[in-house]
Amino acid sequence: MDHSATTPVDPLVVDAMLPFFTEAFGNASSLHSFGTEAADALSLARKQVADAIGAHPEEIIFTSGGTESDNLAIRGVVPYNNGKKHVITSVIEHPAVLNTCAFLEELGHEVTYVPVDADGVVDMNILEKSIKENTALISVMHANNEVGTIQPIEKISKIAKENNIYFHTDAVQSVGKIPVNVDDLGVDMLSISSHKIHGPKGVGALYVRKGTNISPIVFGGNHEKGMRSGTENVSGIVGFAKAMELAVKLLDADSIHMTRMRDSLISRVFDTISDVRLNGHPSRRLPNNVNMSFKYVEGESMLMLLDMQGVAVSTGSACSSKSLKASHVLSALEIEDEFIHGSLRMSLGRENTMDDIDYVVDALQETIAKLRAMSPLAGK
Amino acid sequence: MDHSATTPVDPLVVDAMLPFFTEAFGNASSLHSFGTEAADALSLARKQVADAIGAHPEEIIFTSGGTESDNLAIRGVVPYNNGKKHVITSVIEHPAVLNTCAFLEELGHEVTYVPVDADGVVDMNILEKSIKENTALISVMHANNEVGTIQPIEKISKIAKENNIYFHTDAVQSVGKIPVNVDDLGVDMLSISSHKIHGPKGVGALYVRKGTNISPIVFGGNHEKGMRSGTENVSGIVGFAKAMELAVKLLDADSIHMTRMRDSLISRVFDTISDVRLNGHPSRRLPNNVNMSFKYVEGESMLMLLDMQGVAVSTGSACSSKSLKASHVLSALEIEDEFIHGSLRMSLGRENTMDDIDYVVDALQETIAKLRAMSPLAGK
Repeated sequence: MDHSATTPVDPLVVDAMLPFFTEAFGNASSLHSFGTEAADALSLARKQVADAIGAHPEEIIFTSGGTESDNLAIRGVVPYNNGKKHVITSVIEHPAVLNTCAFLEELGHEVTYVPVDADGVVDMNILEKSIKENTALISVMHANNEVGTIQPIEKISKIAKENNIYFHTDAVQSVGKIPVNVDDLGVDMLSISSHKIHGPKGVGALYVRKGTNISPIVFGGNHEKGMRSGTENVSGIVGFAKAMELAVKLLDADSIHMTRMRDSLISRVFDTISDVRLNGHPSRRLPNNVNMSFKYVEGESMLMLLDMQGVAVSTGSACSSKSLKASHVLSALEIEDEFIHGSLRMSLGRENTMDDIDYVVDALQETIAKLRAMSPLAGK
Repeated sequence: MDHSATTPVDPLVVDAMLPFFTEAFGNASSLHSFGTEAADALSLARKQVADAIGAHPEEIIFTSGGTESDNLAIRGVVPYNNGKKHVITSVIEHPAVLNTCAFLEELGHEVTYVPVDADGVVDMNILEKSIKENTALISVMHANNEVGTIQPIEKISKIAKENNIYFHTDAVQSVGKIPVNVDDLGVDMLSISSHKIHGPKGVGALYVRKGTNISPIVFGGNHEKGMRSGTENVSGIVGFAKAMELAVKLLDADSIHMTRMRDSLISRVFDTISDVRLNGHPSRRLPNNVNMSFKYVEGESMLMLLDMQGVAVSTGSACSSKSLKASHVLSALEIEDEFIHGSLRMSLGRENTMDDIDYVVDALQETIAKLRAMSPLAGK
């Protein structure tokens, strides 16, 4: 129940990767047969990833993952955009975007953090009013990693285009859950992570629309057309490409399956547990995301008790789960204090079943009953 | 014969990695059992890598590879060292160091590129005289990737220490070939790459001595104690650690085996082929490196003909092999024009045999005879 943190690698992906460890192990920059074999595999993978999002292969830069992709999109574009020093983003972005923006602020750039409404949707009026003469980039995520809210990316890209501003979206959570096509979305840059879609960890990509003025953030042997130096992770990239191919091929079936499980989980929790609320947008949300808050209990206690029953959930995003601060996303949604500390994210995956949902609902009921019985605040 | 470009992943390394794809696939930041299982694997890997170079586990930052490690060492330290804006490096560094230094120059830093002698050894007098009040960092590689020359790292670290300057070495080529111990070398930072030592591509580490004032170059969820954000590549890191363990365990045997093959290859080429020279230091060189220049032939033609006979070699480093410029390393060694374009790097590995050497010497003889027969310059 924690697929937004990471996913098991699909056995078909492992099978695709294996030859590139021990047999086709060449360095894609080498001129001999081992090298060209690796380079050919990279070319094919680049085409697979491009095809999966409606892009051209030369618009794909392979990176070490979603975080690096976000860093590259923001730091590779903003300082090189005609001296424009202003960035617009949202308050509920992933730390990879927020902390990159904070770094730009240290360097003297200005960043506007647009608020969201109670459902987690970016305030379009404020976003539009935030635009300045010197706005270089808008970066708003496709779907939020904690509450699953899907942002109006098409509308934002229209505004960005009208104002001649680059637009980047972090699509790490949306790929494989909802359609992701760079032309339909109208974005200039889009970040993807392999390990969120049953691919290996340590690999991802940044889509960069042709004509975008971008500079590298890692320097060296000029791999990836100079945009990302470092010997290419051939096995990882091949696995990632296979995972992308599967994500697109299975999207319709996965989406229906996950939506059914999600809606069943939500309605059954509401039916059987009191003092609960759903966080994030009721309908414009990822098919695999359930984020709920329970009064009178602590998220971390729930997590521990559920874990003992074999149910893996998250309190915030995995990235910040070791911090004790309330999630910046839930805080931005202005969830009442009595709810915010009893929040759980359950994120479904392709391999979950309706039996899993039954099991989780039972485990949740038991867990919350037990914790509330211990709580001095719970009405008994 | 191209192990300095990359190596096949050891089957023991693949075996170590496999469980972390499909079973122990957790995100090391997650608080549940899947997460702690991944975090435990990372801890063990960190200890294995640290042990292999005589470091403490908390001094290891996992990265996406040697290039990122070099970038982090230089760009993570120089701009944050009390306003000191001067860097000293050598003219024969890897592009990951040279191009990172070039980027610093664009930002207004000053870089001194110390020359090398005809054997590729850094000029210690010039290095010492280059030191200024505002020198923040010296970065000199442990062993050169093209000609295999081993630098006097201990002497440089002594000078750096006396002058209170941070010292970084790129040990990407030396690990697994010669002893690499951070205290013996006296370095503050040391870069390692997994795929050069029979580990997977896309992973590496930077050793950072306790107390070194370093800042991250990738921003996000504060993984690696804030020094390198991005979900940890658990399977890759576990494989890398296993490769490091094997590299140290097999170092003595590998080194003897490779030295014997190297010396046999060199002497037999000199015995059977005329108009040839050895590039790099005759004795202070990596046990697996043979870099030779042949008059009257082009490196690339040799490479192609050898490849047709199943022998993989390199003309420069793999990283720059798709460029037609003469190698910056060979140029720095001031190799005569009539030799420089007929240069080949042959880099041996653990799994090569003396039979391979026989085969390669025969193939080289045949190749060079054929090419010289076609050359108008070769004396006939």
